Amino acid sequence: MAKIALGDRDEAARPDCVRAVFAELICTFLFVFAGVGSAMAMEQMSVPAKSPAGLTVVALAHAFAVFAMISAGFNISGGHLNPAVTLGLAVGGHITLIRSLLYWIAQLLASVLACFLLNFLTGGLATPVHTLSSGMTYFQGVIMEIVLTFSLLFTVYATAVDPKKGSVGITAPLCVGLVVGANILAGGPFSGASMNPARSFGPALVTGIWKDHWVYWVGPLVGGGLAGFLYENIFIYETHTPLPDVEF
Amino acid sequence: MAKIALGDRDEAARPDCVRAVFAELICTFLFVFAGVGSAMAMEQMSVPAKSPAGLTVVALAHAFAVFAMISAGFNISGGHLNPAVTLGLAVGGHITLIRSLLYWIAQLLASVLACFLLNFLTGGLATPVHTLSSGMTYFQGVIMEIVLTFSLLFTVYATAVDPKKGSVGITAPLCVGLVVGANILAGGPFSGASMNPARSFGPALVTGIWKDHWVYWVGPLVGGGLAGFLYENIFIYETHTPLPDVEF
Amino acid sequence: MAKIALGDRDEAARPDCVRAVFAELICTFLFVFAGVGSAMAMEQMSVPAKSPAGLTVVALAHAFAVFAMISAGFNISGGHLNPAVTLGLAVGGHITLIRSLLYWIAQLLASVLACFLLNFLTGGLATPVHTLSSGMTYFQGVIMEIVLTFSLLFTVYATAVDPKKGSVGITAPLCVGLVVGANILAGGPFSGASMNPARSFGPALVTGIWKDHWVYWVGPLVGGGLAGFLYENIFIYETHTPLPDVEF
Amino acid sequence: MAKIALGDRDEAARPDCVRAVFAELICTFLFVFAGVGSAMAMEQMSVPAKSPAGLTVVALAHAFAVFAMISAGFNISGGHLNPAVTLGLAVGGHITLIRSLLYWIAQLLASVLACFLLNFLTGGLATPVHTLSSGMTYFQGVIMEIVLTFSLLFTVYATAVDPKKGSVGITAPLCVGLVVGANILAGGPFSGASMNPARSFGPALVTGIWKDHWVYWVGPLVGGGLAGFLYENIFIYETHTPLPDVEF
Repeated sequence: MAKIALGDRDEAARPDCVRAVFAELICTFLFVFAGVGSAMAMEQMSVPAKSPAGLTVVALAHAFAVFAMISAGFNISGGHLNPAVTLGLAVGGHITLIRSLLYWIAQLLASVLACFLLNFLTGGLATPVHTLSSGMTYFQGVIMEIVLTFSLLFTVYATAVDPKKGSVGITAPLCVGLVVGANILAGGPFSGASMNPARSFGPALVTGIWKDHWVYWVGPLVGGGLAGFLYENIFIYETHTPLPDVEF
Repeated sequence: MAKIALGDRDEAARPDCVRAVFAELICTFLFVFAGVGSAMAMEQMSVPAKSPAGLTVVALAHAFAVFAMISAGFNISGGHLNPAVTLGLAVGGHITLIRSLLYWIAQLLASVLACFLLNFLTGGLATPVHTLSSGMTYFQGVIMEIVLTFSLLFTVYATAVDPKKGSVGITAPLCVGLVVGANILAGGPFSGASMNPARSFGPALVTGIWKDHWVYWVGPLVGGGLAGFLYENIFIYETHTPLPDVEF
Repeated sequence: MAKIALGDRDEAARPDCVRAVFAELICTFLFVFAGVGSAMAMEQMSVPAKSPAGLTVVALAHAFAVFAMISAGFNISGGHLNPAVTLGLAVGGHITLIRSLLYWIAQLLASVLACFLLNFLTGGLATPVHTLSSGMTYFQGVIMEIVLTFSLLFTVYATAVDPKKGSVGITAPLCVGLVVGANILAGGPFSGASMNPARSFGPALVTGIWKDHWVYWVGPLVGGGLAGFLYENIFIYETHTPLPDVEF
Repeated sequence: MAKIALGDRDEAARPDCVRAVFAELICTFLFVFAGVGSAMAMEQMSVPAKSPAGLTVVALAHAFAVFAMISAGFNISGGHLNPAVTLGLAVGGHITLIRSLLYWIAQLLASVLACFLLNFLTGGLATPVHTLSSGMTYFQGVIMEIVLTFSLLFTVYATAVDPKKGSVGITAPLCVGLVVGANILAGGPFSGASMNPARSFGPALVTGIWKDHWVYWVGPLVGGGLAGFLYENIFIYETHTPLPDVEF
């Protein structure tokens, strides 16, 4: 069953929560700086990000930066970097709603700051926005983002949250980083493979291009929430089922 | 000696088996979605998958997705994703035949569902099928798939199954993912480097192109079964051999 | 608070310090040999390092070599490879100032030796120097190097230094290597993404091209020092805060 | 001091030695199949292996296959795959000379078998041989192979052999695989970056092209032996030095 936890009103003022929100801000900023930066590097070299070489650059930059920044934030904030991850974990009761809200604000703010800074440092290059490829319908785009983000959150739950994860937990941040890379290599030329509303929000705000933007909120949040609900209720269970009635 | 286990008739109804089959379905679906999706991304960008840049994209997408999905399924179903892996493990007695059959059905169904969804989401792009490169004989193709899948299963046994694996087991899913990547970089332009009947089955069913399809059943199943038999009987042994007769 | 430690005058003569400085020399030499070598490989093939394929080669070579050489030096010298890493750790009191100075000398010497050797082995090919892309101001370049090096040191502190790092520490060298890779994929075509004064110093000395060189001292040292100061003072804390006054 | 061990005459007949030699044969075969296969894949697509995209394919295939096959062989034979690794370890006394000789034979035989099979499976494509790039002198080529193989063995010793390796040992095979990748990205277009006489021997025997072949014996064996001697005698020491004379 869903285990959503509200959190108490004092949470936002406790030092560990303040530190976690600040870590989330820093880690998301550094992830977006590398991720969006890699797409702008393609622009700088006049190469379409949707060429195989450009796609490889962008996918590896995201994969490596997600791995490093999840690892960096892991023991402070959990290293979510992504409102869809935060929602997916909230659905399973692994973070309170109050803290989730603070994480969302930090993640969005971090993305905006990173994109403004990239725009300034590159002498005004546009921060590339996520849009659907030509001919793709909204329905197709939303479903693709749902599937890709489901994949991301399913990996998060199985490798980092599930109490029976065992030694798989040691490579959890790497798994999550590389599944993001794989999903970009597959979905990049179609829906853009955002899987992350914050990652999409910064470039949209800085450029003012909001075309298709809602797709990158609805898809990732639905996909992430669904994966969290499903994994929590089906795959997290007590390893040892209680014995049948036994008389002592 | 071979240690094949049939399993009992109630197995299919036990909760852990149902959950395992369901996890196998989800993980294989997400792996095929990323893997076949990456080959379709090349099509979308009008780049042959058999160019070096296309090959890199496809190999990395498979490597990363195999790593992530083996890790995700590891503690529920074992994360096979592949009928050849399931057969290879059944040959060594590490999974019952009944459960193997259910895994096969889940893997094939997952691949078909992922390919139909990709076909729909990309507005009808063909799901690229595995075929032998022009001039390659069936014999050559089957042998290549045997060698590549032997390599995959040998890695699975040595890093994940062998009781003396030690700390190598921590990186087992990464080993398996990256050996799939290496093998695609080597065999992709020749036999296609499927190593996985389910991975080949979905695209064939969706497109109706069955040319060379049997190669991707015979090669992987023979290669995987052979590696399982060989490893189990030669390399899995008691570390401490019994002492010669000694009188006390 | 800052915890800078001077070190005592005998330190430089102690066997563990001599061994550490020698390890730092070897590991930095081998890292620079692979990193600068990969940029010269692009020259050798008449490909601009600032093309997507060239950028991928250079970023992967740096990422992989940083990972391997941090790992190799980890238990002898810490595997810094980089004056900005050494400074960042000195700011948090994790290395004495005397030993830091010796590390700096070893790192710079190693880079110079590796670049001279590369120049000789390639029949006189120039060792490519870090410069700002045309149109980039010094201010932009310095800020970009600050951000990228902050990212590097933040990862070092969170995954390798922080006492609450837990199992994340097992993949710390990989995190640091791959964040270097991600940052090169993003910043390479703009500021060059050095993040390392020693890495920039060798090629400059060998070619005699000192254009923009100061940027690769100021940016990395400020960014690395800032990350060390910030992480040490905000995110390293006792897990269990002392209880309020309680009478027994 | 050097700790070379001869081994006793019965060693070759003991079951663990027979199994180790057989594992070395299988793992080297599968590594060479993927490595040489990736270079032939470039030929098949009419792309020079010494283009940036070709170089990336070949470097990743070697890196991933080395990682997987070291891991696979790790607990049976040590997973050397390479006469230079075996020599480097023999120099430090970590393998007897008798077993080293058997490993060399297995490694060379494996490479020859893999290359003959690749030649057959690809309809007679030549197995690409290592040669020095045009204009490179023997002296330059030998030194480059010495440096690159020194880098490989230094990593092997520091991450897998050194008793103080700690948790770095968990990622040792990955370190070794990725340093091979980095070194190919740097040295590939110059000396070929073999670092492995067996890897060079198979293609030479199958094609009959022995040009420059001796370079790939002298360079790797000298570089590997040197790294083993240096690491063993300088960096492997007792962690706790004995206390000065103390009266009890």
